[in-house]
Amino acid sequence: MNTEVTFIPQGTVTTPKGFMAGAAYAGINKHARFNLDVAILRSDVPTNTVGVFTTNKIKAASVLLCQKILPSATVRGIVVNSGCANASTGEYGQADAQNMGAAAAANVGVAMSDMLVASTGVIGRRLPLDLINTAISQINLSAEGGFEMAKAIMTTDTKPKHCAVSTGNFTIGGTVKGAGMMHPNMATLLGFITTDAPVELTFLQTSLKAVAEKSFNMISVDGDTSPNDSLFLFSNGMAGGDIIHTDSPHAAIFQQALETLCIYLAKEIARDGEGATRLIEVAVHGAQSHDDASKVVHTIISSPLVKTAVHGCDPNWGRIVVAAGRSGATLVEGDLDLDIAGIAIMRKGVPLPFDMKRLSNELSREQVRIEINLNLGSYSATGWGCDLSKEYVSINADYTT
Amino acid sequence: MNTEVTFIPQGTVTTPKGFMAGAAYAGINKHARFNLDVAILRSDVPTNTVGVFTTNKIKAASVLLCQKILPSATVRGIVVNSGCANASTGEYGQADAQNMGAAAAANVGVAMSDMLVASTGVIGRRLPLDLINTAISQINLSAEGGFEMAKAIMTTDTKPKHCAVSTGNFTIGGTVKGAGMMHPNMATLLGFITTDAPVELTFLQTSLKAVAEKSFNMISVDGDTSPNDSLFLFSNGMAGGDIIHTDSPHAAIFQQALETLCIYLAKEIARDGEGATRLIEVAVHGAQSHDDASKVVHTIISSPLVKTAVHGCDPNWGRIVVAAGRSGATLVEGDLDLDIAGIAIMRKGVPLPFDMKRLSNELSREQVRIEINLNLGSYSATGWGCDLSKEYVSINADYTT
Repeated sequence: MNTEVTFIPQGTVTTPKGFMAGAAYAGINKHARFNLDVAILRSDVPTNTVGVFTTNKIKAASVLLCQKILPSATVRGIVVNSGCANASTGEYGQADAQNMGAAAAANVGVAMSDMLVASTGVIGRRLPLDLINTAISQINLSAEGGFEMAKAIMTTDTKPKHCAVSTGNFTIGGTVKGAGMMHPNMATLLGFITTDAPVELTFLQTSLKAVAEKSFNMISVDGDTSPNDSLFLFSNGMAGGDIIHTDSPHAAIFQQALETLCIYLAKEIARDGEGATRLIEVAVHGAQSHDDASKVVHTIISSPLVKTAVHGCDPNWGRIVVAAGRSGATLVEGDLDLDIAGIAIMRKGVPLPFDMKRLSNELSREQVRIEINLNLGSYSATGWGCDLSKEYVSINADYTT
Repeated sequence: MNTEVTFIPQGTVTTPKGFMAGAAYAGINKHARFNLDVAILRSDVPTNTVGVFTTNKIKAASVLLCQKILPSATVRGIVVNSGCANASTGEYGQADAQNMGAAAAANVGVAMSDMLVASTGVIGRRLPLDLINTAISQINLSAEGGFEMAKAIMTTDTKPKHCAVSTGNFTIGGTVKGAGMMHPNMATLLGFITTDAPVELTFLQTSLKAVAEKSFNMISVDGDTSPNDSLFLFSNGMAGGDIIHTDSPHAAIFQQALETLCIYLAKEIARDGEGATRLIEVAVHGAQSHDDASKVVHTIISSPLVKTAVHGCDPNWGRIVVAAGRSGATLVEGDLDLDIAGIAIMRKGVPLPFDMKRLSNELSREQVRIEINLNLGSYSATGWGCDLSKEYVSINADYTT
């Protein structure tokens, strides 16, 4: 049995065996950088498919539709559009989502009930079904279509995000779109993961939830949560071999491979947050519980004051300590250790003398690591965010106009 | 008995009888617009004084000091500086705060134990006591000193914030500073309220807490909570008359007057949030509990996506509904009504046709009112925030440099 995970940066959702994809342009996404805004992903055979969805009480029509279908052992694919979220669309939304799914199913020759639907974009507007259906009819699937799909799902993302991992026995591919309105749970707007590993449905769901918790739920761009957040995992079993379940020998390596893929894609999203110029990694150690560690991470990566300070390379480290203080986690000021980019800033609550200029320099690097030790327990958590720039304001001040 | 509350926009903390104040420049606040950064407020006689403080677990030295003293029936005044928060300053902070209080007490002739201390500014730096003590020795108190104090406490505020209210029987004056790092609980960095009404200590504390809940705890600028947040209420009784307690005839009018003053000052803070160009008022009705109504208000006024949309006059109303959806409050999409600036946007979860251009126009006004009815219960809440501009990023990207 192979226990090494190989990372394939050029991998996509069509890298695993038996998946094809394609995309076209309906003209509804004004941000579309590649003139693509509708994509279809299809498996040659039925898949075990599971999903994790937004916790927002306002859910997009596509999310409600998929939640009815999943988990499923018969799903054949998914159709996704960018530019219109089909959320807050009242009674019409559901019918529109179903129609979009039906058109895609007809085009790629599968049953309507086995075609999932996802949308991202402006909230409160109806799907322009005529435009979408025309685009769907133009889509041709191919084994290289994963690249097109990665491009078609982008909104304010500056680059497509995809990769794959392989263990020799099986392959997992993924593509995500992020950029704004991202916050735990779920942090990613849309994520699609495919694998040719034969994975039992319950274990597939457990694995996706556990891995999402450590990856997409540990990033934040702006603290907002979308009604469309959806993460899908399709397993078509075409790599062959024994079914992977909780107790099978491949269970651990499957989860490890999935985690490698998801953490990479989550970091790609944080790095490409709207207006972001750098990635902020926050590691918290010594917490009394995992929940406490996680709270401190989330509060720091979501703090506008920390994010602007990093953006300006301002060595205003006090804001980090104070964000930890308001996180709700158990902590004692006199126990805190803080390091930024490897520079010791505080030990046991006492600020240390340090070279401000050097810190400012370190803050200008592409990736900034903040480490806090609460020195109270043995739990840790790591999360990722980005700096807050004027560009974020520009992007969001005239998103629909 | 007088039951009318008269609003005095030019009032200050020295408008009530028997309060004097003064300020000087220590040179520690580089943002000081009026060359003032240290102020002293003093009552001619001992006051009943209460306070409400930050919920952040990281508390500034001045907060810890005041929490030890309050509530008190002997307090004579407070000394406050801007430019240095004296927070996250380890073991030195407490001693520095005490020294600052002692110097002020000596200068204005009161006991050290009756002089409170407040600070605001950069976190993690020690108070430059020599500079502060020199400034303190230059302070002369006067009955017009309230204006100087309002100026001396400013950091990135663009204008001093103060007012008074009078009932004929007594007067209440207040001054606050806000601008950034403000979020419920407490939303204001520093607030000082004086009254010549004779108010019993327990009722004074109850009143301040209740009113803070409806005013300063209902505003947000950036979701961050300062370790220095403090709101003080000094009652010196010099207006004469019977002691006001829970059951006294003046109890209601005192609370009403205090609420008028605090809501005015809270809105002034929101309006003058860092980089803000307009005030956003959010009113939520029909909630199943006060807590639910309050959660929806807070989530909307804190949402970067709502704030940037208002800034850009972008009629992207979906972001408001979605912020409500992630607030944690009980709500049903199909029950939601939404109005922006008096324009009906959604009824029972269904978007209505409306004039986008008119909405965009309304969003450009100085004050924008957002109203949501959850149609589930009878509880309401109102809160205030501001738009998010590039200027916010500029201000915070190089705060210490």
